[in-house]
Amino acid sequence: MAARTVTRKLVDDHLVAGEPVAGEEIALRIDQTLTQDATGTLVMQELEALGLERARTDVSVQYVDHNLLQADERNAEDHEFLRSAARRYGLWYSKPGNGVSHPTHMQRFGVPGATLAGSDSHTCAAGSLGMLAIGVGGLDVAQAIAGEPLHVRMPQVWGVRLVGELPEWVSAKDVVLEMLRRHGVDGGVDRVIEYHGPGLHRLTAMDRHVIANMGAELGATTTVFPADDAVREFLRVEDREEDFREITADADATYDVTDEIDLSALEPLIARPSSPGNVVPVRECAGEPVHQVVVGSSANPGLRDFAVVAAMVDGRQTSDAVSFDINPTSRQILQDLTRMGATFQLIAAGARMHQSGCLGCIGMGQAPAVGHNSLRTFPRNFPGRSGTADDAVWLCSPETAAASALTGVITDPREYARDNDLAYPALELPRKASVNTAMLLPPLPAREAATAELVKGPNISSLPELEPLPDALDLPVLLVVGDDVSTDEISPAGARALPYRSNIPKLADFTFTRIDEDYPARARETGAHAVVAGRNYGQGSSREHAAITPRHLGLSAVIALSFARIHWQNLVNFGVLPLTFTDPGDLGAIRPGDVLRLRDLHATLPASRELTATCGEHRLTLTHRLSPRQVETVLAGGRIPQLARQQ
Amino acid sequence: MAARTVTRKLVDDHLVAGEPVAGEEIALRIDQTLTQDATGTLVMQELEALGLERARTDVSVQYVDHNLLQADERNAEDHEFLRSAARRYGLWYSKPGNGVSHPTHMQRFGVPGATLAGSDSHTCAAGSLGMLAIGVGGLDVAQAIAGEPLHVRMPQVWGVRLVGELPEWVSAKDVVLEMLRRHGVDGGVDRVIEYHGPGLHRLTAMDRHVIANMGAELGATTTVFPADDAVREFLRVEDREEDFREITADADATYDVTDEIDLSALEPLIARPSSPGNVVPVRECAGEPVHQVVVGSSANPGLRDFAVVAAMVDGRQTSDAVSFDINPTSRQILQDLTRMGATFQLIAAGARMHQSGCLGCIGMGQAPAVGHNSLRTFPRNFPGRSGTADDAVWLCSPETAAASALTGVITDPREYARDNDLAYPALELPRKASVNTAMLLPPLPAREAATAELVKGPNISSLPELEPLPDALDLPVLLVVGDDVSTDEISPAGARALPYRSNIPKLADFTFTRIDEDYPARARETGAHAVVAGRNYGQGSSREHAAITPRHLGLSAVIALSFARIHWQNLVNFGVLPLTFTDPGDLGAIRPGDVLRLRDLHATLPASRELTATCGEHRLTLTHRLSPRQVETVLAGGRIPQLARQQ
Repeated sequence: MAARTVTRKLVDDHLVAGEPVAGEEIALRIDQTLTQDATGTLVMQELEALGLERARTDVSVQYVDHNLLQADERNAEDHEFLRSAARRYGLWYSKPGNGVSHPTHMQRFGVPGATLAGSDSHTCAAGSLGMLAIGVGGLDVAQAIAGEPLHVRMPQVWGVRLVGELPEWVSAKDVVLEMLRRHGVDGGVDRVIEYHGPGLHRLTAMDRHVIANMGAELGATTTVFPADDAVREFLRVEDREEDFREITADADATYDVTDEIDLSALEPLIARPSSPGNVVPVRECAGEPVHQVVVGSSANPGLRDFAVVAAMVDGRQTSDAVSFDINPTSRQILQDLTRMGATFQLIAAGARMHQSGCLGCIGMGQAPAVGHNSLRTFPRNFPGRSGTADDAVWLCSPETAAASALTGVITDPREYARDNDLAYPALELPRKASVNTAMLLPPLPAREAATAELVKGPNISSLPELEPLPDALDLPVLLVVGDDVSTDEISPAGARALPYRSNIPKLADFTFTRIDEDYPARARETGAHAVVAGRNYGQGSSREHAAITPRHLGLSAVIALSFARIHWQNLVNFGVLPLTFTDPGDLGAIRPGDVLRLRDLHATLPASRELTATCGEHRLTLTHRLSPRQVETVLAGGRIPQLARQQ
Repeated sequence: MAARTVTRKLVDDHLVAGEPVAGEEIALRIDQTLTQDATGTLVMQELEALGLERARTDVSVQYVDHNLLQADERNAEDHEFLRSAARRYGLWYSKPGNGVSHPTHMQRFGVPGATLAGSDSHTCAAGSLGMLAIGVGGLDVAQAIAGEPLHVRMPQVWGVRLVGELPEWVSAKDVVLEMLRRHGVDGGVDRVIEYHGPGLHRLTAMDRHVIANMGAELGATTTVFPADDAVREFLRVEDREEDFREITADADATYDVTDEIDLSALEPLIARPSSPGNVVPVRECAGEPVHQVVVGSSANPGLRDFAVVAAMVDGRQTSDAVSFDINPTSRQILQDLTRMGATFQLIAAGARMHQSGCLGCIGMGQAPAVGHNSLRTFPRNFPGRSGTADDAVWLCSPETAAASALTGVITDPREYARDNDLAYPALELPRKASVNTAMLLPPLPAREAATAELVKGPNISSLPELEPLPDALDLPVLLVVGDDVSTDEISPAGARALPYRSNIPKLADFTFTRIDEDYPARARETGAHAVVAGRNYGQGSSREHAAITPRHLGLSAVIALSFARIHWQNLVNFGVLPLTFTDPGDLGAIRPGDVLRLRDLHATLPASRELTATCGEHRLTLTHRLSPRQVETVLAGGRIPQLARQQ
């Protein structure tokens, strides 16, 4: 057998169907799943629609981490529903306050060599442990829970060789920001990023989590690290050393694409508003006033990320013009931070300590004032994702965040250290984590689970009915949008919309409103319609609401220059036809209000990758990348009617 | 001079006008003021309308403690506006996260013998230090900041003699719940509650804060404790012993009304949903399932209140069916809790730790699911105040809350202790508090303040214009409501409405919607109208929004059996005529839609306490309790047009 990458070993170990050749659809056996509350209520409704008796995975966990504000009864009702569904279907249930899914999953369930499908785009973070962890739409996770394989297009393997060692004041976040600086928000599309090389050995598993997590921002299918001594050490601290298994690339393995980063040459970086791809050196923005600094999220979740901030602000005061917000990622990490004295240091320096969870990362609290700069250690700064329509959110490392909180202006931490005679903190982290699983409820025994009742409050609606795809479509183009439109813009999260995540007809009222507030009304009036977009359409979050809600309003086809992977799959799953322009130049000819005409779809889609169409007066050719399996899904109107018909 | 009560000494020391005879209007010099963000944005707009140059009090503090969720940009904009107004007018500014106004004010600014006017109904909590502390509407606070005296009706002095000592597992909250059990939510109207007697000596100043705070729930004008050794000890821990001054009642002082509580005979008590007056022994409700337990708020704000909970749950796990929420009251208290290890104990037992502030107390987060019991150490459980329309909120002591969190059902802590062999915690509190004033910004020097700019984001509206009172009114009765309607029902707080606290026209859309969701539309259509109510109309929060928003919608007169003090004063301040039925039996004759006809108001109001009126076919006599000063205010259309005309 030829020398293999870590990625290829993981794929081979789980391959159920297909050839692992880049671009071909493959089917993978899934060992573990994770769902969170913002996407999980739909997944649980889908399990119900699928008639599942009991989860067939090794481990499936329902986390509650996104909607913790509970500004009214809806969040609490979602939590009750999820708890009851976890009991019914044999899942683990992580209570509100136990923590963000990704670090918690890594700490309690991550196993080198396993596959993980998660209804959250940052599921890829578990690649830090040598797992093949893929963020997908909720329906794909529901099927994985039911024991079905996951279908993905085999990505290219992008070997990124790390050499050198990070300088002081530069940390893992700067590594992934450097990747984004070089390659932008679609640089990883259809690729797995596999890190290797001698630079790895000083990166802890949690450092690798930071890098793997934000692989999602590059559009990558996932990110993979080897399972080496750093992973063994991580599992030892978590009291699970027996779960370790070494997985490294063969010495002479080759990669489809290659790149190299000299860690010693990196400097503190920052993503300017409002894209994770707008990366520049911190020193180029130094002096910009800062009104808010937020530390936390799945992008910088580790004990170390908070502890380094605590050490930097210890005995100092953050600027009186700054709101200094700490979002601990998990109960366990907050417990360890408190045990080691870091919580005290943070509070004493002016921190607002928030409950463990995602919170501000998706606009569930701590929204900044309009136009006031907010520096965050978060993964994303898409427009409005903070909860503020005209926000100015920057993404940076914990070190840059802390230095800027102290000064009240964007500050290169090296500069701060020099001016204030601050040594780079030598952190002493606990040798044993405060493992505490009391808020992580295990699956009920099968007999008990079988009779457990689903608790559906008044805010839990049923899934809408979906019609099969007609043979001919006449679709007024209701929106023409630009590049890099995120699912945050298609179906916003935030405190207004998130409480309706279990209520599709109501949530549909928010569809595209960040771009065009009349869209929902116009779509309801029009019925079947199309949307036209530029590159990387549907980047960001994995929420399938961004497919279901416009579909509910009549969206039948999206024509784009290119699609982000998860959203593309979600469109298919819910029966929306995703097409690309064969000639990218045709995009410019399309105007809102033009009518897109598609004919003979039932015969053409299975037979050819190309379709001819007219749009207004214009004739054009469109391309689809659907597998035969996916063509059937779209023709059926989506996976749920398709499965219903098979029963 | 005759022997005097503490109340009388405080009144005499500050009397500017009037005779201190119960029922007469007196004017008091105000030494200190307190405003919070939910009421403070209006106060700052009023200071602007009054053309104030600089605060004339000894101490005026603008706190930010209510609206901390920041679900969108509006909260953050309010915070910027308040910070800028504090700079402009020479106030202290307590940053978001520094803590709840009442305990923070007590810790940093409370001085025995001083007067305090606060635009928050729980301002009375400072009575714990031997202060005369009165919750009033924002406009009264604005005038106090401007150096004007505060006008109040001289209350009766209600001497409550405490004897005996509290048994184990019974604490200060049970004392004030016993007062509510005996006297109900209007038992304190037009009274100052003055505690005295040998039972006092084992109650710390913070215990007294608990009792004084919820004096508001009895409808009392305020609560007063002597400044004795317990107060000296409190100030010593806060590093301010020099601010101590002894103030006790003269040995033979007499009270207008008297009562006695034998502390040793008390047992754990609980207020059932949905009134603080529904008090019963905990043992009578034992076994009711509990879904949420929340510890914190200005009603149980002390280090001791959290520490006793931490000690009870230490090494144990709270029930897996319960969300165990901790709302620390201030940064200082959280710092001390963390220093003494209690934060660690709470987290380890399953606590969701929230940022320091009021949060769930007024529905800003942690809203429970419909009908799911929530046990809280909070002061109020008015219907819907939690943020959930059909909520089931119970009020209890920290001991009862902790025992119930552990078992998942309402539990008498004595019972829990017996069954689990738990000794009553002997707490070792720090001898010195972690005093840390870095989030408490001092007033700017006058010269700098004079040129400071007010920062008004797009959500800060101007105050509406108010017309003088017509001589004749024909007022359709738009609503007839029952007893004990709270300002939470007139102008709701909660996450939907609170962000509009600086935007009267928008906030008006929420007026009375908890009782009748069509009221705003009907009022806008009708214009001038009346509301008819039972006893204790306008109890609860001091928010003047409950007067301004219905006035903005056309409310011209309220006829009730009786009024809560602060709301009555707010109605006058904003030009709404508050009247009572001379014959209470007339209430039954009034139907919604009847037209109330009032004539010759300009001549009658100054001349007589009685007015004749017709309502529909019915003739009736109405009474007003306005002082001559207040008659002028109402005739002018409210204080602001009145002052404008005087300029």
